[in-house]
Parts: sequence; C-alpha cells; structure tokens
Amino acid sequence: MRLRIDLAYDGTDFHGWAAQPGLRTVQAELTTALATVLRVGDDDARVTCAGRTDAGVHARGQVVHVDVAEEVLTAAGLLADRLDRLARRVNGVLARDVTVRRVTAAPEGFDARFAALWRRYAYRIVDDPARVDPLVRNHVLTWPRVLDAGAMDEAARSLIGLHDFAAFCKHREGATTVRTLLDFGWTRDDAGVLVGHVRADAFCHSMVRALVGCSIAVGEGRKPPSWAAEIMAGRRRDPAVVVVPAHGLTLEEVAYPGDDELAARVQQTSARRAPLEHP
Amino acid sequence: MRLRIDLAYDGTDFHGWAAQPGLRTVQAELTTALATVLRVGDDDARVTCAGRTDAGVHARGQVVHVDVAEEVLTAAGLLADRLDRLARRVNGVLARDVTVRRVTAAPEGFDARFAALWRRYAYRIVDDPARVDPLVRNHVLTWPRVLDAGAMDEAARSLIGLHDFAAFCKHREGATTVRTLLDFGWTRDDAGVLVGHVRADAFCHSMVRALVGCSIAVGEGRKPPSWAAEIMAGRRRDPAVVVVPAHGLTLEEVAYPGDDELAARVQQTSARRAPLEHP
Repeated sequence: MRLRIDLAYDGTDFHGWAAQPGLRTVQAELTTALATVLRVGDDDARVTCAGRTDAGVHARGQVVHVDVAEEVLTAAGLLADRLDRLARRVNGVLARDVTVRRVTAAPEGFDARFAALWRRYAYRIVDDPARVDPLVRNHVLTWPRVLDAGAMDEAARSLIGLHDFAAFCKHREGATTVRTLLDFGWTRDDAGVLVGHVRADAFCHSMVRALVGCSIAVGEGRKPPSWAAEIMAGRRRDPAVVVVPAHGLTLEEVAYPGDDELAARVQQTSARRAPLEHP
Repeated sequence: MRLRIDLAYDGTDFHGWAAQPGLRTVQAELTTALATVLRVGDDDARVTCAGRTDAGVHARGQVVHVDVAEEVLTAAGLLADRLDRLARRVNGVLARDVTVRRVTAAPEGFDARFAALWRRYAYRIVDDPARVDPLVRNHVLTWPRVLDAGAMDEAARSLIGLHDFAAFCKHREGATTVRTLLDFGWTRDDAGVLVGHVRADAFCHSMVRALVGCSIAVGEGRKPPSWAAEIMAGRRRDPAVVVVPAHGLTLEEVAYPGDDELAARVQQTSARRAPLEHP
C-alpha cells in the first residue's frame, strides 16, 4: 500500500532533500526513521517527494509517498487505519527540525511528484533594521536597504503565465525551461516582513531564488518593473539577476487533483517531463 | 546622556537577561558590545531593562536604557544625532540571536524599568500534531493534546484586574504580589497556534508561566474555567498549577507614558516597589 506523508522541516542543518552519501539530508533521515519504526531495511522505505528542496530551503507543506506492504505495518504493531500512531512513532525517532504532520493511506494512482498540480513557495525578507526578529532569523532574509514592495509586485505579476523561464533557470542540456507560473506577487505581512508568493506547475533548479533576485533589483530601484519581463524574453541568464540565499525560501504547499483525476495527471506529467528532465 | 535601546532576542542560548559570572546572558552581551563600540569599560556601558526575562524566554520588544557621556560618543566617531550608526555598529558585534532594533536619545526622566506603564507578553502553544512547525520550534510550545481555547480564554479573563497574585508567584519574603492584570486572553492565530496575551503593570517571578499552566489545566478539561479565580482567591501556590516551559514565552511590548509624565511615573513606581521588592 502507498502512504502519503505530509512533512515540515527547518532546512538550516540539512544538505537539502536528496540523499547524498555522508551528508545529512531530509530524504535520508525520513527513510531511516520509517525503516526503524517499520523494522525494514532503508531500501524498503524509500520516499519520493513533491519538491526536491535545495540545501538550506525549508518546508511546511512537503508531500512524500512511500510504498509499504500491509504485512510490514501489521508486523510493526501498526494497523492501516491507525496511521496517526505511525506518525507519532516516526516523530519519536526524528530530530526536532523535521516533523511528520500526517500519514494517510494514499488514494489509488497517487504519486507525490507526478500527481502534483502545483507547488507554492514563499520567500521572506525583512528590509527594516527596526523589524529584524532573531526568532525567525533562520527563515527570513535580512536585506540592508528598504525595498519598494509595490514595484516588486508589479514586476512579479508581469511574469505570470506559460513562458520559457530559461533566464531564471540553471541550464541543463535537453531539459525544458518552459513552465506555467500560476501566481507571483509580493505583499507585507502584519510584522512588516516582505513575502513573495510563487506558485507554478513545477520549477526548474534555482528558479524561485532567481525570480526573487530579479524582484530585489526592482525593489531597490536599480531596475524598473518592466525589466523583469525583458529579462524573461531574453531567455538567457543575466548577471544582474542574483540567485538569493536559500534560507529565505520555504515550500508552503503542494496541491493535487481529485482522486479520480490522479492517474490522468500522473500520465500527463510523467510523459511530458521524464524524457526532457532525465535525458 | 541617556540612550533608549529597543532590543529583540532569541532566548534559547541565553541564561536569561541578568548578568551572571561565567554564563552567557543578554545583559552581559549587550553591555560588552556597547562597551566595545564606545571604547569604554563594561562598567561605563551598564544597561537596565524593562523586563528581566528568565533563561529561555525571548523578547521582540525589550526596552533598555544606558547612560553615556556625549564625549564618549564623539570620541567613538558617533554623532548624537546619528544613533542609527551606533545601532548598526553594535549589531556588527552582537551574535545573530540578539539584535538592536533602534537607538534613540531618551527623553528627560526616562527610565526603562521604572517609567514603564505596562509589559505585554505572549505565550505560544501548538496543540495539533498536524500543525507543528519546526521553523518556530524554539518559541512555540508543543502540547500533545488538543486544548479548548474558549474555556482557556474564559478562565483567563476572570483574572483581569487589581489582585493579589500570590497563587501564581514564587514567594519572596517582604515582596508584594499585588499586581494589576490589564489584559489576559487566549486566541488562535492564522496558523492555528494558540496565543495567550498577558499585559500587566508588572509581573512577579514566573507569574506568566504559572498563569499559562493554570490555563492549560482548564484547556484540557481537567478543571472548569471558574477554577482560575478560585486558585487566585486562595492566595497560595497550588500544585495543580504547573509552571510551563520558558521557551513558549516572548516579551512583546513595553509601554511608556508621554514625555511630560515620565518623571511622575518613575517616582510613583520606584516609591511603591523599591522597599517591597528589594528588602
């Protein structure tokens, strides 16, 4: 049976999501915790995620799937209808910077990665020394100059839609950089923190952090809001677009279609992306 | 001249506010940072705060004063009308878990401790495993069972007013435990975190954390909301009132009267409290 795991983590002390020999990663820690609780080998508790976060990037709404034989659950003293106990036990093994929020039986056809409709990220910036908050220093970037949120928002909105985002992506031979940017805008929250909301069907590597770097150039007044669309139209990386630090970025939410549309969605995305992204 | 310093810190790695030999405290770190920047000895940069936070307690709105000779500022290359530069330099010396938000010339008669009208604290609790957020684990208490926010709020409101809070205070011979609780209530924020807001003219030691412990007993349904007022009326500590962990507590704000009322306020509070609190 396939389980869906909703996961949150503080990325500060992780070398990102993907398992790498000798490094502490979220994928490896979660796999080992599941394997410990289920009393299986790590190979029988491999997890697949919706958003492969880079080193230092956080998640509140990461979604993961893992395939487990029902006999394994029973042997570990867990019933398939009491998966909250599995969540509690896994949390008992995990360190405090990563937390399983929920474990549920995944519906037929569910795939954390390929069934996702969209991913939503938030990038947080404090640009006023009088508002710097040490309590959130690990997930809010401190910027030394005041930024114009209105200009940033205008620039961000001009990028929404189906476009080639090559100007904001790390080039990879044979991989498409065409994405549908469903939402991109900047607002200030109650504490005065500037929050960039970015939502897309999928992202290429470092794309959100380059979009934020572009926004900051506009927010500082070094470039006009129209510059963002010009950069995008150029379809090549521009040195004026800085890839901002990872620690301001958090994966907030992943959305899936209704249960009866999962299989069709998986077929659609895996057919479209697999040959391009994994040449 | 007297400077007012607005300060924020993550209390996790501090042994509280008050300087203690051999321990890392906020008072000692701030004093040393000021002394370094002003090129004076630590004795000439002693800071006095509005709320002496315990070990592990955080602050977003701590207020501090320090007396500095104008010649000292000039000698350090700082002008009295460019105190933002002093703030920046002190922040350059301080570790990242403590931040000076603002330095201003204090008005005549200002005293961070004795001129304060009230202090406001917040205590944060997450009581749903699906909402645990590793990004805020250092300042939000995780509670393993769901709490009834409405019952907690009812109990809290019944304590507002001028009362003897001996039932919630650590007993100290000769010290009064009479305080004016200006505000006490519980709400849930957008993320579902239960937030207790407590505002009083002043607090005795461990009072807020005992008030929160009392609230939790009600929130779990172990006691009815009316129990809080009964405990208070008893005027002695009750073992059913647990003092909750420090890390959920944050000093959010300190308020002062208008400039022309500062001196009167200092006279009023120092006359009332000094002989009682420092016997």
